[in-house]
Amino acid sequence: MIGSSAPRTLNVALLGCGVVGSEIARILTEQADELERRAGARLRLAGIAVRTMRRQRDLAVDPDLFTTDAHSLVTGDVDIVIEVIGGIEPARGLILAALESGASVVTANKALLAEDGHTLFAAAAKADRDLDFEAAVAGAIPIVRPLSESLAGDRVERVMGIVNGTTNYILDAMTTTGAGYSEALEEAQQLGYAEADPTADVEGFDAASKAAILAGLAFHTPVAIGDVYREGITNVSASDIRSARQRGLVVKLLAICERQDTPDRTHVSARVHPAMIPESHPLASVRGAFNAVFVESHAAGELMFYGPGAGGSPTASAVLGDVVSVARNRVAGVSGPAVATHAQLDVLSIGDVHTRYHISLDVDDRPGVLAAVAQAFAQESVSIKTVLQDGHGGDAQLVIVTHQANDSALSATVERLRELPVVRGVNSVMRVEGGQS
Amino acid sequence: MIGSSAPRTLNVALLGCGVVGSEIARILTEQADELERRAGARLRLAGIAVRTMRRQRDLAVDPDLFTTDAHSLVTGDVDIVIEVIGGIEPARGLILAALESGASVVTANKALLAEDGHTLFAAAAKADRDLDFEAAVAGAIPIVRPLSESLAGDRVERVMGIVNGTTNYILDAMTTTGAGYSEALEEAQQLGYAEADPTADVEGFDAASKAAILAGLAFHTPVAIGDVYREGITNVSASDIRSARQRGLVVKLLAICERQDTPDRTHVSARVHPAMIPESHPLASVRGAFNAVFVESHAAGELMFYGPGAGGSPTASAVLGDVVSVARNRVAGVSGPAVATHAQLDVLSIGDVHTRYHISLDVDDRPGVLAAVAQAFAQESVSIKTVLQDGHGGDAQLVIVTHQANDSALSATVERLRELPVVRGVNSVMRVEGGQS
Repeated sequence: MIGSSAPRTLNVALLGCGVVGSEIARILTEQADELERRAGARLRLAGIAVRTMRRQRDLAVDPDLFTTDAHSLVTGDVDIVIEVIGGIEPARGLILAALESGASVVTANKALLAEDGHTLFAAAAKADRDLDFEAAVAGAIPIVRPLSESLAGDRVERVMGIVNGTTNYILDAMTTTGAGYSEALEEAQQLGYAEADPTADVEGFDAASKAAILAGLAFHTPVAIGDVYREGITNVSASDIRSARQRGLVVKLLAICERQDTPDRTHVSARVHPAMIPESHPLASVRGAFNAVFVESHAAGELMFYGPGAGGSPTASAVLGDVVSVARNRVAGVSGPAVATHAQLDVLSIGDVHTRYHISLDVDDRPGVLAAVAQAFAQESVSIKTVLQDGHGGDAQLVIVTHQANDSALSATVERLRELPVVRGVNSVMRVEGGQS
Repeated sequence: MIGSSAPRTLNVALLGCGVVGSEIARILTEQADELERRAGARLRLAGIAVRTMRRQRDLAVDPDLFTTDAHSLVTGDVDIVIEVIGGIEPARGLILAALESGASVVTANKALLAEDGHTLFAAAAKADRDLDFEAAVAGAIPIVRPLSESLAGDRVERVMGIVNGTTNYILDAMTTTGAGYSEALEEAQQLGYAEADPTADVEGFDAASKAAILAGLAFHTPVAIGDVYREGITNVSASDIRSARQRGLVVKLLAICERQDTPDRTHVSARVHPAMIPESHPLASVRGAFNAVFVESHAAGELMFYGPGAGGSPTASAVLGDVVSVARNRVAGVSGPAVATHAQLDVLSIGDVHTRYHISLDVDDRPGVLAAVAQAFAQESVSIKTVLQDGHGGDAQLVIVTHQANDSALSATVERLRELPVVRGVNSVMRVEGGQS
């Protein structure tokens, strides 16, 4: 129906021409006819902004399209700006300039959206232009549109995602081979799954950006990266993974966004940390560098979205889906639904989040030890679900899994345990998710 | 942004008030404020069409809303019509009347869309109104919007879905307990997973409707239920499942939609049949009555969408997501993207589809048997991947898995095998999917 009358052309500016950008340029060029039929308008690549002109690019696009003057490009005669530069500046300034000049924007920039999405969404609303960002969370996996549109008639209770491929690759390798963290990281680096400086991934910064975006979408509330509790995987040991395995659990780095009702009001929370989940949970079988987002909603129940979380082609697919959608809106002369923030729910700090702990202790092997340990839990009103003793004599260990409690009470319990004379050491403490309380 | 100015009201007519309809009425009433914020307009339940007024309904809605005159309801002062009656008539007539009167329509009616979607989509395009149908495929799982919007910039190569919960429940029970088909069906009926007359599910009619809809969306080509090859699960035996298991395979009823390129042109195909897939395939771990749709696309790679495939609440969630989307469009004075049919690709018949077979034969246990059997495959140019002999003497069996070939060549091979003197019987023939050729 759309585009059945006079064909028109939309000018597209591409900011950035790395792995993702060059793939986008390739598809825009090679699939131009098919994209025109889908969008209802010809998508004409009007310019590609790059940092320097030095590098030779063997793309099948007109070399005259390249420019180092991104600002002139986005404020010129363009209808759609695709931002795949990443980082905060100059990306933010360019997106704001593009919106102000009347262009619609598609971005894959999770760091910027998590840092300052509020400013960008406000600018898009003011300009009455689209700002789409499917590629910012979990690569090619459609999750932004399902959360904001498909589930628009439902109430999302919890989102749990494996949203960082690097850390899932490392944890999966540790699970499969029994390797330690450093060894698995090194292998991931050799295979190109981890950067030379892996900080953004292994310390959970990347996942925290995505958690902020997911929480905002799921709960119609502005959530920024500063609201997200964050713990990386650098302290996960081979023994944590072994201990989990013995109990039918698997260790994953999860981004968890939850709605939490108290008698007087509703809160939300967003956090990223390693967690043990049951082997039978759908997220447990997400292997290698794949991503998956598990959504629990009031009416729909449990949904899961699975796929590649990164890479040039998958990210380009997500970006181009947004480009077609934005183009259809421009042809129709409208903008799509803005990011909803009407709920304005308060964001809980980690201490007030309800969760469960898996705690492994080195203890003395003598009568009364369990009583002393149990007393520490009771003093913080934390209820124990299971206790298991491993080994004897100098090797005795207690492994305790709790029922749900405030994270602050759980954390205070661990402090008490550290001070107990019968406890020779706290081996590991990890949250347990995805099961009954 | 939307709805920030003068609030307005949209009148909603509900056709059907069974399990799904009453859940929709409940949520529309109980969540009215939240839905208003999301849609940008008050969604006012203007009437509920039912077949007879006799049954008492303990819904918290005004009893005066019920009417048996569906036609007057949809052609009256309504903006959005929700159709959850099911079946071909009167649903089709009512949807056409609603569109003609200027209402937008949300339907969960897979049978009608697969039978005559073309007429409905044409009517929606002519009226410039939305006709949304997320709930028609795989219940609450967002799959229509991801295929038509998120992947709009990509090329879908194959869609493989477990889209019928009843048959997945039965096959899963057979796999887990070793039960035969009749026993597992009976259990499913007792637990409410299968109807007293299970034909629509177990013979694959329901899945075939969904295959037609999925193929249309994935390949931008009109595909009707008559284009879909269909085989149910009534002939799947406990021994098929055991034999699959021994080879690391699992039996599932799959809806498979494929693009198939020949040198001169591109074709598509759609089929529903039991198939063996590797245990490591993401679809293999879909248990019980859950549904999942696995999508392979050129740029995005492998995606999977998982969740409950039926039930009142999940279906209501999908319907209401569409209702909010349709309402937003009415507030903005536009209609969303129409179902794309520009590709107009030819639909292949099953004989021309490329697939693999798993064949189990009772054979004589003497020299020359394998040569005779291999000769039958060679005569049809079908290449054998593995052969395995089970048992000896009167109990000898050959299990053969082929490489990819035309379904017609595979089928002709089986006919030759049946006629071979050394073959005492063909125990089972099943297609193998989801692995390397």
